[in-house]
Amino acid sequence: MKLICSKSNLLHGVNIVSKAVPTRTTMAILECILIDASANEIKLTANDMELGIETKIEGEIAERGVIALDAKIFSEIVRKLPDSDVVIETDASFKTTITCEKAKFNIVGKSGDDFSYIPYIERNEAITLSQFTLKEVIRQTIFSIADNDNNKLMTGELFEIEENHLKVVSLDGHRISIRNIELKNNYEHKKVVVPGKTLQEVSKILPGSAEEDVNMFLTDNHIVFEFDDTTVVSRLIEGEYFKIEQMLSSDYETKVKINKRELLDCIDRATLLVKEGDKKPIIMNVTDGNMELKINSFIGSMNEDIDIVKDGKDILIGFNPKFFIDALRVIDEEEVSLYMVNPKAPCFIKDDEGKFIYLILPVNFNASTV
Amino acid sequence: MKLICSKSNLLHGVNIVSKAVPTRTTMAILECILIDASANEIKLTANDMELGIETKIEGEIAERGVIALDAKIFSEIVRKLPDSDVVIETDASFKTTITCEKAKFNIVGKSGDDFSYIPYIERNEAITLSQFTLKEVIRQTIFSIADNDNNKLMTGELFEIEENHLKVVSLDGHRISIRNIELKNNYEHKKVVVPGKTLQEVSKILPGSAEEDVNMFLTDNHIVFEFDDTTVVSRLIEGEYFKIEQMLSSDYETKVKINKRELLDCIDRATLLVKEGDKKPIIMNVTDGNMELKINSFIGSMNEDIDIVKDGKDILIGFNPKFFIDALRVIDEEEVSLYMVNPKAPCFIKDDEGKFIYLILPVNFNASTV
Repeated sequence: MKLICSKSNLLHGVNIVSKAVPTRTTMAILECILIDASANEIKLTANDMELGIETKIEGEIAERGVIALDAKIFSEIVRKLPDSDVVIETDASFKTTITCEKAKFNIVGKSGDDFSYIPYIERNEAITLSQFTLKEVIRQTIFSIADNDNNKLMTGELFEIEENHLKVVSLDGHRISIRNIELKNNYEHKKVVVPGKTLQEVSKILPGSAEEDVNMFLTDNHIVFEFDDTTVVSRLIEGEYFKIEQMLSSDYETKVKINKRELLDCIDRATLLVKEGDKKPIIMNVTDGNMELKINSFIGSMNEDIDIVKDGKDILIGFNPKFFIDALRVIDEEEVSLYMVNPKAPCFIKDDEGKFIYLILPVNFNASTV
Repeated sequence: MKLICSKSNLLHGVNIVSKAVPTRTTMAILECILIDASANEIKLTANDMELGIETKIEGEIAERGVIALDAKIFSEIVRKLPDSDVVIETDASFKTTITCEKAKFNIVGKSGDDFSYIPYIERNEAITLSQFTLKEVIRQTIFSIADNDNNKLMTGELFEIEENHLKVVSLDGHRISIRNIELKNNYEHKKVVVPGKTLQEVSKILPGSAEEDVNMFLTDNHIVFEFDDTTVVSRLIEGEYFKIEQMLSSDYETKVKINKRELLDCIDRATLLVKEGDKKPIIMNVTDGNMELKINSFIGSMNEDIDIVKDGKDILIGFNPKFFIDALRVIDEEEVSLYMVNPKAPCFIKDDEGKFIYLILPVNFNASTV
């Protein structure tokens, strides 16, 4: 095989497919990036058997062929090459020479025969949304997937399509994040659970332009994302996702309108008194026109008042501050509304149009110490 | 005690003195920053018994007093306060209230009585140089102090003053870095060894302006740096520094003029084939007009040619690539000159004016494998 392409094209492609290279594996071939120039195009592929990424790069094929190169070494070499044309040449024993200007690297590759190509997925109708929207939706929900494997379904996100509507849900047992998106077309009803890791990697490699689209294809076992010159194929998580409708009530006893930045900054300040593992709640004392936030820990105490618009009853309620910070950080609106029923029932952070719902369970606290 | 100062002034002061707070200590009082408002000015101090830093901050003293506050908690609180006036108030039992806008923190401080103030040093004649020069000199020599305590003197840098000349030297047994600076005034001959840690911290807090000066005072046991509103006092390392004059010869058999950026990039590329602990030398093969650089490791091999101007004999010589990278990174000149005698004798990187000398010992290699 012999091919010539620019360092920047090569690096761009390597950075994309590297996201699917497993960090730990017993199969050495999976630690490789496959360069496939056996036909009329140059394709880079990596595959950890759950997630596979393939991308095409521009370049000239002087001699057709296929080679698998250690992903770590190859990407480090490419990154450090001068910004010029790169020639990659292999011989029958998989010896690979990478030349760029006067620099010449020799490494040993592997046969592409043992490489597991990404599975071929029959494409049905494409679900289309903008790169920007998909990237935003992932950012605004990914933080509330579970961080351990105890319940596999909690490590993924629900993607539910109904007519021209996409609902994305993540939950970890203490909170739920929901994003609703309107699609341009109508689709059949479909419900899948996409691994969180897949979404994290897709979000990293998505350029995120509002003008460019992503095509998604759903099958029983796989989801495919297609954008620009890149194809991402991921297994789905099997099983029936949690029924969340029964947890979402629109009744409330207290509604609070509050400046998002002020609330976020205040909770952020309060958490510096809480060291890891020390589960101190932040207490919100809601009265007419005012929310007092308080935290008490071994280190000290902090309190702060924020102006609010209150509708309904006064309430004294406690939360894990991290859950509020996570949700507030991804909300773009300047002002948010909190809906509460009582100190034991979940608090909802919602907008009026129903674009997002963040549900956060309160925590118990000893009211006498407040 | 009660004092009022702006968040930005307070944060600036806290960031400066924090550099002298020990990371590990059995004396809890040393983990504190002392706020001393017992006279007409607000002074912050931290002291790890080797290195002490004191800085003055602007502010209003409403009630005189002294308090010691846990450095980590206090600096985190200050960092997260809104950008406004901060009020610090303490009571007789060292309870401290920090108020800024509507945010109010309560923490418990300690009496300042147990705090070890930085020692009073009798000021003799000040040695004056610009902040920029001192910061540059530290950056250009600090990388070659020893990274372990086996020889205490190697963990510091020699500061030698002779007439209007300051020489700064660091060495670790494999290499020597020397910087020569011309001073504005003439001084008595003095020779001290300053701890590397002191220089690292001074370099971090020095604003580095070319218009502003630093005053240095040397005594038998201490060095003092004074700049802006800050005073740094450090113990010196005791003992007689290494005699380096006999290692510095101006004879050479080969002189190479080379573009610094090309040489640095090439060695940097080569090192990606060398994993930690794997001591592969970079081999330089110097011939007329050309330097070929080669490296061979378990991962692969790399070679590259660089145009040079050669004066004298051809030479084949090997080096630890890290030592070359460290020295080349801190040299500002576009072109550097290397002086070599034979493959067993040190290589010198020098400029014509004698501002800097970097001596690097070569390593043995098996010439037959090259």
